[in-house]
Amino acid sequence: MTDGASSRGPIVALAGGVGAARFLRGLVRAAAPEDVTAIVNTGDDREFYGVWVAPDLDIVTYTLAGAVDLDKGYGLAGDTTTLVDRLGELGHESWFRLGDRDFANCLHRTLAMRDGATLAETAETLRQSYRLDVRVLPMSNAPCPTRVELSGGRSVHFEEYMVRDGAPSDVESVDLSAARAAAPAPGVLEAIRSARTLVVCPSNPVVSIGPILAVPGVRDAIAASDAPVVGVSPIVGGAPVKGPAAQLLRGIGCEVSARGVARLYAPWIDGFVIDQRDAGQVDEIEALGVACRAVDTLMVNVEVAKRLAQAVLDLAEQTRDERGR
Amino acid sequence: MTDGASSRGPIVALAGGVGAARFLRGLVRAAAPEDVTAIVNTGDDREFYGVWVAPDLDIVTYTLAGAVDLDKGYGLAGDTTTLVDRLGELGHESWFRLGDRDFANCLHRTLAMRDGATLAETAETLRQSYRLDVRVLPMSNAPCPTRVELSGGRSVHFEEYMVRDGAPSDVESVDLSAARAAAPAPGVLEAIRSARTLVVCPSNPVVSIGPILAVPGVRDAIAASDAPVVGVSPIVGGAPVKGPAAQLLRGIGCEVSARGVARLYAPWIDGFVIDQRDAGQVDEIEALGVACRAVDTLMVNVEVAKRLAQAVLDLAEQTRDERGR
Repeated sequence: MTDGASSRGPIVALAGGVGAARFLRGLVRAAAPEDVTAIVNTGDDREFYGVWVAPDLDIVTYTLAGAVDLDKGYGLAGDTTTLVDRLGELGHESWFRLGDRDFANCLHRTLAMRDGATLAETAETLRQSYRLDVRVLPMSNAPCPTRVELSGGRSVHFEEYMVRDGAPSDVESVDLSAARAAAPAPGVLEAIRSARTLVVCPSNPVVSIGPILAVPGVRDAIAASDAPVVGVSPIVGGAPVKGPAAQLLRGIGCEVSARGVARLYAPWIDGFVIDQRDAGQVDEIEALGVACRAVDTLMVNVEVAKRLAQAVLDLAEQTRDERGR
Repeated sequence: MTDGASSRGPIVALAGGVGAARFLRGLVRAAAPEDVTAIVNTGDDREFYGVWVAPDLDIVTYTLAGAVDLDKGYGLAGDTTTLVDRLGELGHESWFRLGDRDFANCLHRTLAMRDGATLAETAETLRQSYRLDVRVLPMSNAPCPTRVELSGGRSVHFEEYMVRDGAPSDVESVDLSAARAAAPAPGVLEAIRSARTLVVCPSNPVVSIGPILAVPGVRDAIAASDAPVVGVSPIVGGAPVKGPAAQLLRGIGCEVSARGVARLYAPWIDGFVIDQRDAGQVDEIEALGVACRAVDTLMVNVEVAKRLAQAVLDLAEQTRDERGR
């Protein structure tokens, strides 16, 4: 158990990529890592260069392992790009800058899945190879590609939208139909049902948390749970820290603000931790029936992440007490 | 045209791996590179790590490009092994030490073939990427795995025999049935038919030249050709320079000597260039009806290779003159 952590029973965290990974790095310092299960979005997953890439699973794993490229927020620190560079020379599209060692992990996944392993089993092998105590579960073992629908009837895979096209703003809607048709990975619903605390990481509400909630059974399991559900706002000072959340929130008609995200989540969360720069919205959010605290959520280092996680766990305890659960 | 080269019309060379590649490096300096077509053994090809590896095609290409790892004789100089190292950590067999940039070439081949390209088309892309003037043709576009049959009824793929198992000596026979059932790649028979000179590179007679000859139509095309056929002995001073030729020659009941190889080839070659260390066998070989010359065949540098190639071309001209062709 890490310094300062105290056992609070099972914690389940719904997680996307960079923001979630940074938050989890704090959570495993504020709680016992072995109590934490991350249920990770797989809507971004896709084949690149013949291998199955699971960006959010890998960002979470690499970050918790202390192996992530911190500047980029994804990929492995010090990784090389021999492979994509050479493929580019040979005329392949190479906009997805997968590093060589990262590729090796994805190749392991691909070969194991070809031999009959599930995505979850491959995530488990990678987790073990990085000696993590946290459980890392994909939301589903089935491919669940999130598609972004743009003006003019164009529809692109999320990675094409985000990485290849640079996240244009003409989003008309987000298609989560694949997630809606997918079975949850074994253990996902069980983890939610047995959680003492449910956390929503500071991830993109539309394309990271949205797909997890779209998987059949997840929303019902959360609704049926007695555990307090506490979210963290991915918005800081009225804008997302990183990524295309603004374009995507607008695309689904949601205000790009802590308050806007709180409205989205209000039907199923008990508490919401927002950034201190957005503290003026606390009362409005509480008026939605959601306990709200404003703290520093800009996780520039692991200490900030740990304090943020502590605030989330504290708020969970408070809502638990208030509701007599 | 390279220094010292003179146009002699189309030259077709049957080629295996390291020995052939080193010889071809000399041949393209003794003749015009654009006159040379290498027909390359593909019996060693196999999938490793999800990609299709064609060792002899790549050794020939890399060597002619001046990009080969000269110490090893295969792979790319300065290549890294991030990928196989990581796969090894994750529990995969990693005895086939494919480099990262080499892997990228094989991945290109694999992705292109998945999209419908033939092996020959992918060899052509790689040839062009290395700006080679020589034509490099696989003997067949179909998989033609050479299998080695060992004592106790064991049968292994050639790469398993050679690389994984370290070329044990209990060879009972070599199974070329896949090559025997494969169609020649487009252009192979045409190249042989239109060649002015046919060369057999100093390659393993059993597992490099054997598979090419086993492809339907190849022997007949050689037999029907008016071109002189000149081979180079892969034996130097009574032993192969490299590789498992001794074990394999014995396995098919052939003496491990220049004379032994000459006996194998005698039915279809006109001339044979052997090493000066084996010069004592010249008369015996000529008695087989094969014109024979002994020169330095140990290609320690490109100059030796060029002189050897020159000797081969000279012997071809001589047999052509003698036979009035």
